[in-house]
Amino acid sequence: MIMAFSSYNFNPFLSFSFSSTTTTTTLLPRLYSIKLKWKSRTSTPFGSKVVGSSIRSSPTQSIPVESPSPSGGSKTMTSNSSALTIVEVDLGNRSYPVYIGSGLLHHPHFLQKHLVGKKVLVVTNTTIASLYLDKVIDALTRDNPEISVETVILPDGEKYKNMETLMKVFQQAIESRLDRRSTFLALGGGVIGDMCGFAASTFMRGASFIQVPTTVMAQVDSSVGGKTAINHPLGKNLIGSFYQPQCTLIDTDTLTTLSDRELSSGLAEVIKCGLIMDADFFKWQEENINALLAKNPHAIAYAIKRSCEIKAQLVSLDEMECGIRAILNFGHTFGHAIENGVGYGQWLHGEAIAVGMVMAADLSLRLGWIDETLVKRIHTILEHARLPTSPPQCMTFEMFKSIMSVDKKVADGVLRLVLLKGTLGNCTFTSDYDKETLDETLRSFCKF
Amino acid sequence: MIMAFSSYNFNPFLSFSFSSTTTTTTLLPRLYSIKLKWKSRTSTPFGSKVVGSSIRSSPTQSIPVESPSPSGGSKTMTSNSSALTIVEVDLGNRSYPVYIGSGLLHHPHFLQKHLVGKKVLVVTNTTIASLYLDKVIDALTRDNPEISVETVILPDGEKYKNMETLMKVFQQAIESRLDRRSTFLALGGGVIGDMCGFAASTFMRGASFIQVPTTVMAQVDSSVGGKTAINHPLGKNLIGSFYQPQCTLIDTDTLTTLSDRELSSGLAEVIKCGLIMDADFFKWQEENINALLAKNPHAIAYAIKRSCEIKAQLVSLDEMECGIRAILNFGHTFGHAIENGVGYGQWLHGEAIAVGMVMAADLSLRLGWIDETLVKRIHTILEHARLPTSPPQCMTFEMFKSIMSVDKKVADGVLRLVLLKGTLGNCTFTSDYDKETLDETLRSFCKF
Repeated sequence: MIMAFSSYNFNPFLSFSFSSTTTTTTLLPRLYSIKLKWKSRTSTPFGSKVVGSSIRSSPTQSIPVESPSPSGGSKTMTSNSSALTIVEVDLGNRSYPVYIGSGLLHHPHFLQKHLVGKKVLVVTNTTIASLYLDKVIDALTRDNPEISVETVILPDGEKYKNMETLMKVFQQAIESRLDRRSTFLALGGGVIGDMCGFAASTFMRGASFIQVPTTVMAQVDSSVGGKTAINHPLGKNLIGSFYQPQCTLIDTDTLTTLSDRELSSGLAEVIKCGLIMDADFFKWQEENINALLAKNPHAIAYAIKRSCEIKAQLVSLDEMECGIRAILNFGHTFGHAIENGVGYGQWLHGEAIAVGMVMAADLSLRLGWIDETLVKRIHTILEHARLPTSPPQCMTFEMFKSIMSVDKKVADGVLRLVLLKGTLGNCTFTSDYDKETLDETLRSFCKF
Repeated sequence: MIMAFSSYNFNPFLSFSFSSTTTTTTLLPRLYSIKLKWKSRTSTPFGSKVVGSSIRSSPTQSIPVESPSPSGGSKTMTSNSSALTIVEVDLGNRSYPVYIGSGLLHHPHFLQKHLVGKKVLVVTNTTIASLYLDKVIDALTRDNPEISVETVILPDGEKYKNMETLMKVFQQAIESRLDRRSTFLALGGGVIGDMCGFAASTFMRGASFIQVPTTVMAQVDSSVGGKTAINHPLGKNLIGSFYQPQCTLIDTDTLTTLSDRELSSGLAEVIKCGLIMDADFFKWQEENINALLAKNPHAIAYAIKRSCEIKAQLVSLDEMECGIRAILNFGHTFGHAIENGVGYGQWLHGEAIAVGMVMAADLSLRLGWIDETLVKRIHTILEHARLPTSPPQCMTFEMFKSIMSVDKKVADGVLRLVLLKGTLGNCTFTSDYDKETLDETLRSFCKF
């Protein structure tokens, strides 16, 4: 069933050094490669029919352009018998699969085989509950009478990702007599996934956890890698844990109900993946941005799969974000400041990250680390993706400075940033940049 | 510097089986042993003068009786140049030392070598702050100008071990600009240790953590093993994590200010260690209970050292309490019900655990698993230790049943219990007991 398991040229120009105070990528000759720890499998839902696979083994191998082929590891979004791609997040005894495919919720097998105890608490929100809750309960309980399912339906939005809402999840879990063997299932976007995961990780010091993400944002980013969190009034995601799920199930059919704004927000993370690590993927996005916005099932499935692969690779190398995993935060320090500054939920995460990437690229340019052409390409693709490229006027220089000073990437008082460096697809995570140039970037984006 | 590192006859009569639904110890022939993963070192604070060591390598080896010798790994409680015992909790890359000795806070070396970043947040309470906060700040900063120390002083008592108080710790951590490299230092008893540890484990998904326990309870139990938690109104320690500190520093001099009631509470956990795993240690306690109550420094130091060794051994074998570690919960299911039922903080933890052990022993007797002599010995030592042996009258049968049904040891609706089985020093963790007999025990201790 394993179709591809090969070494991978991990950004041939990029190496990564770890130090106690600064972690930096540097440009090295085209000799450096990292043996991939993860594998990607492609199969039918029940394992008999092999559909194909196209894990890229070198940057020169062809990738889908315009209309990705079935060998991209995914099939149409509407067929109930469609292909399945499995991206394995390889973390020793905490490894887990990310199932990606159309119609997966019609196959109870995927979820049921990852249930540990007899009780499941589905954590979802008011928007998603009416769309997919029945389907998920059916997938959990069909021909499985031993399983009992409880539900907690939270209000929808980032502004509810806080301790007060989290306590509602605990209350329901305790009242439903959940125990350590029970499963918390996150059904929704990034907010639900982060909050449900944090509840699972701390309920009785750790219960079972499954992710069923229903937005592009959650499917390509927050549901892979085990980061859980809630916000604090003083900063985003300041309280949380690293906690890996038993599995992540991405039924791409759930995207049919996704709003255009949410779709664009998710695409910001897809674009980020190309910028930090995969020039070919970024070029593919430039050529296929209209297909992505039109929810072309082939294009969307490929974008999700490739983003999950990139994320799984980085997480496998550095689960606890001691080093290289931090590059996934490209644009996030600026973006989180905007999310906090305008009030959680006013801007979608991807909208803020889009602006954050523009600002980080601006700083990279001012530092002389990238050329202007790349900055323009970033602007162009984000505008095509209907994403903002400048912060709201309410964000002042001092607000950025103040909020960024409590960013999780501050170490001993010094803010480390992910910045682009070199050709497209290369970046660096470093505290070794000119601090006055950062101020110049902030002033150039703020009126006050 | 390593004085003893040997295999250890881990309860020669006891083996442990793991299964998905029930974990049980059973009596087996005297052939079973487990290779110890931990080691215990005894040295002077700065490593040059070796004082001695007495890790028991077999049940027949002599142990201190009446007045433990210096070879017990500890020296007087008042000398600033006294011996140091190090119990190593062996957990791979999460291993850490437990330093035990008199006057250790006079030696900045111990704490300073475990600091990762430049900022420390000392979490303590109103009682302990006036006694030891200055001393700890001095130990952190002496000849160490790079370190800055912030403090959060919480109200004292189990009733404050909740989300509201935890948020005060986060607030202070964020306002003090702590980051992932900063250290949370718990200075106080079990409540402070549990809450500070939980804050450390979830602040920015995990900061550094040091325990400086100041009660016998915290020194022999809660500061070793990485369990952190806060209470929920519906149950004790229901929200928490497994999170190991960088080190635990036990300065036995801090016990000079401990109240008699707190001392007795801590002794309940010492007595538990003997009952579940070390008959010789229990006998030594029977013979030395008056010395312990009089805070005889030799007796206290030996009791702390031996309890830490037993706990470290079980934690090293089973960090996440998937099996054998659960035997440390002997008496706790009944005890937690009392703590919750009477209102957190009304009874000290050890007082409730003392009654819990009596009730668990009663059930073991009714099941025919132990003889009456052992039950009487348990009653006698607890009474000598000035601990209660029956629950308060307000605890009804239904209250016990209701609160115990949300215990963390419930698995798929079935309550697993730690019960004594066989001769002194043997126990079992099982769901395979007669449930009506449990009801008989509860009725025999409740008027209503």
